[in-house]
Amino acid sequence: MTDIITLQQRIADLLGPQGCLLQPEQRQLYEKGARYGDGKSLCIARPANVDEAAELMRLCARDKIRIVPQGANTGLVGAASPDRSGLDVLLSMERIKGVIDIDPVDRVVQAYAGTRLSELNQALEKHDLYFPIDLGADPSLGGMLAANTGGARLIRYGDVRHNTLGLEALLIDPPGERLDLTNRLRKNNTGPDWKQCFIGTGGAYGVITQVVLQVHPRPQQSATALVAPASMEAAALLLRDVERNFADFLSAFEGISQNALQSVLQHVPGIAAPFEPLPPYAFLIELSSARPRSADFDLEKLFGAWLESCFGDLILDAVIDKPEVLWRIRHAISDSVRQEGKVVAFDISVPRSSLGQFRQEAAALLEQSHAGIKLFDFGHWGDGGLHFNLAIPEQLIADFPPLRINALRQEIYDLAVLKYKGSFSAEHGVGPFNQQFYERYTTPAQLALATRMQNVFDPERLLGVTSYGAKQ
Amino acid sequence: MTDIITLQQRIADLLGPQGCLLQPEQRQLYEKGARYGDGKSLCIARPANVDEAAELMRLCARDKIRIVPQGANTGLVGAASPDRSGLDVLLSMERIKGVIDIDPVDRVVQAYAGTRLSELNQALEKHDLYFPIDLGADPSLGGMLAANTGGARLIRYGDVRHNTLGLEALLIDPPGERLDLTNRLRKNNTGPDWKQCFIGTGGAYGVITQVVLQVHPRPQQSATALVAPASMEAAALLLRDVERNFADFLSAFEGISQNALQSVLQHVPGIAAPFEPLPPYAFLIELSSARPRSADFDLEKLFGAWLESCFGDLILDAVIDKPEVLWRIRHAISDSVRQEGKVVAFDISVPRSSLGQFRQEAAALLEQSHAGIKLFDFGHWGDGGLHFNLAIPEQLIADFPPLRINALRQEIYDLAVLKYKGSFSAEHGVGPFNQQFYERYTTPAQLALATRMQNVFDPERLLGVTSYGAKQ
Repeated sequence: MTDIITLQQRIADLLGPQGCLLQPEQRQLYEKGARYGDGKSLCIARPANVDEAAELMRLCARDKIRIVPQGANTGLVGAASPDRSGLDVLLSMERIKGVIDIDPVDRVVQAYAGTRLSELNQALEKHDLYFPIDLGADPSLGGMLAANTGGARLIRYGDVRHNTLGLEALLIDPPGERLDLTNRLRKNNTGPDWKQCFIGTGGAYGVITQVVLQVHPRPQQSATALVAPASMEAAALLLRDVERNFADFLSAFEGISQNALQSVLQHVPGIAAPFEPLPPYAFLIELSSARPRSADFDLEKLFGAWLESCFGDLILDAVIDKPEVLWRIRHAISDSVRQEGKVVAFDISVPRSSLGQFRQEAAALLEQSHAGIKLFDFGHWGDGGLHFNLAIPEQLIADFPPLRINALRQEIYDLAVLKYKGSFSAEHGVGPFNQQFYERYTTPAQLALATRMQNVFDPERLLGVTSYGAKQ
Repeated sequence: MTDIITLQQRIADLLGPQGCLLQPEQRQLYEKGARYGDGKSLCIARPANVDEAAELMRLCARDKIRIVPQGANTGLVGAASPDRSGLDVLLSMERIKGVIDIDPVDRVVQAYAGTRLSELNQALEKHDLYFPIDLGADPSLGGMLAANTGGARLIRYGDVRHNTLGLEALLIDPPGERLDLTNRLRKNNTGPDWKQCFIGTGGAYGVITQVVLQVHPRPQQSATALVAPASMEAAALLLRDVERNFADFLSAFEGISQNALQSVLQHVPGIAAPFEPLPPYAFLIELSSARPRSADFDLEKLFGAWLESCFGDLILDAVIDKPEVLWRIRHAISDSVRQEGKVVAFDISVPRSSLGQFRQEAAALLEQSHAGIKLFDFGHWGDGGLHFNLAIPEQLIADFPPLRINALRQEIYDLAVLKYKGSFSAEHGVGPFNQQFYERYTTPAQLALATRMQNVFDPERLLGVTSYGAKQ
């Protein structure tokens, strides 16, 4: 085995001083996760192009050095962080960036994986197009594919998987082999759809170097309301009925619990209470259209009339306001809740028809076994997504050591996954942080398949820190 | 090795007389393809439920007998037909049928694989929902997933892959193992998305037994026009502009060539010429909405005004008419062309911005090397799909023996795939009929992956007649 200093030297020789970061203060930006976790790498490798990345993979494979691909380091499950051994090469894609081509007739864009979402949308703006995956962070496109990011507008546009027409990936076996799947076809049924293997698998099967995405006309008008349903049963019917009436336009159906709303009002200055008193739950409903507002097509008018017709049966109260006003409330929740205590964040999904029932049952479970902890849930209700976030008040933190939090997490997941056939990670992926839960909820048949699949793509286990296969 | 009679007996014992067809006149319905090809099976096995199907797979695997899964036998590439050896067991899923559950709030339906599309839509009707994959045939749902069917409304709803939330499949290794992926989640990022392996792979990796589909509100109003573009260059801009103005509503953008339109007018009684003279190309544009027509939201009015504004620059002429009138023309093409001579059908796609150029170049190629053959192309222009169908007039059929037709096919495919990065099979799949082209256009890197993948799912090559791996 080659020693670490020699390997660092070889990588520096291959990629140049800009391409190989060795100083601790340079590395920290990459080794520490966006919100959680950290590790220690052998070096930060920043190839300038795809050929250099392939060469780096060959170099690492020769010495059986593990590679951890990283986009913009905005992930939340540790999938792009090295472990603490100092033996992983962190492969940053940030220099392999740039939009290659935009075709406005195709509504297709091709770009390198290191391009940021914001950079893509900036380039698309002059064509009145955008990539409608709406997120809090500004990830790289390669990272978005690897994580299959969802976000608030999935109900309208689907997730990243739905909008990916093609990609290019580098395989680790044979090392650095380029798999060119960069076609732009919407219809192509010529065998296994290989790109699916690289989407949502956190870099375990290959390093995504290029993406080909379907993009969409930018909305030209929208109508946004915050709605208090008549009851939680009415909430399900409200979703069903808004889809029946506005299926063509519905671009968000977000849930906000009373506690979450209360927390925003308390901690964010300048936001007025939309309801008095606050209802147990509220929904931010957004309609939008690529067609500009006109006298004969006005979403706000259509929406307003419909909301009016729902008063009583389905709706207790509703506020129609500018999107920026209502979304500001929604986007402030995550940070506000941080001021309520130590946050335990969740990223759950269940069938959306069960959301109300799941939420009630999970809240009762908390009440019973973990009194004092406070629930501030919110989420992408229309997609079945629920950030079932909790805050442990300052004075109770000592009562909730990591082991108890882990047990609590598992109780909630057991309810979501085993009883409601839900997901313990709706949007964020597996990664080392969710590894134990992946192993708990994945069936033996799937684990067996995953083990065989790892032998297809990465028999030496040289790629990424997530392991989908059964323990050897 | 067990002899055939014994095997037939064992299968009859397992599945009963209804479940094992042996008489030639009974078998023919399954052994002969919907439109092309035929084979000879060891028997037609028709298990009554999933357990019986699993048991059958175990029985066949023990004796290394190949199984060919079949849905409603409506496929066009021979993927569900046995070869001619008389040694394949044809596994018909037609008895494993029925809708299991419809959840109108989730907009989700779960059904057995043998359920027909028409049966599904009938069950959905009372909820004002439908599965919007629009096809000429009435396939089984399992077959639709295995073929990843597209159809005329892909531009709005995506293909079957986009609308599949879950499935259940039986693996052949271990034989008959049930892989339960029947979740109903729109957001679930917990590892490799295994269902993708079974979608569009023609039964090569497993037998689909259940499907979980996202369904959609049934349209309540529509507006349909047949449009003659000012030129073929204008056609691309027309597509771009109709999407900018009606992205929320566009549910079909179908192309019809002059010859195809002429053929319909000549052979189908009661259809009046929509234009005089016929333009070189016409487009059937359909808008639809789940929202009923009202004074303040009338798609026909909006569409009419917009079409008017396009006259001159983009549009030469346009006819707004009832959907059934205009779709009747579109749906009559395939059969009309059959009356023009011997049909050579194509199922090509290219990036939609290149459709006009590809078509022109392919027509010139025909003209030059295959004079006398006549082009009647039409297709799903909005998705980049083109049925580049040809008819060989009666008096020239002798000049076009099978080898020449195959060479012609390859010339057209070479142009589509190699020059335009298109597909030789946009909607219909690979199957034995396209095997030679699959091998021609698939890269060595993909073939190598496919070979390894086959070792994951079917190391003994016991499932299906399509082979995605490299020749051994």
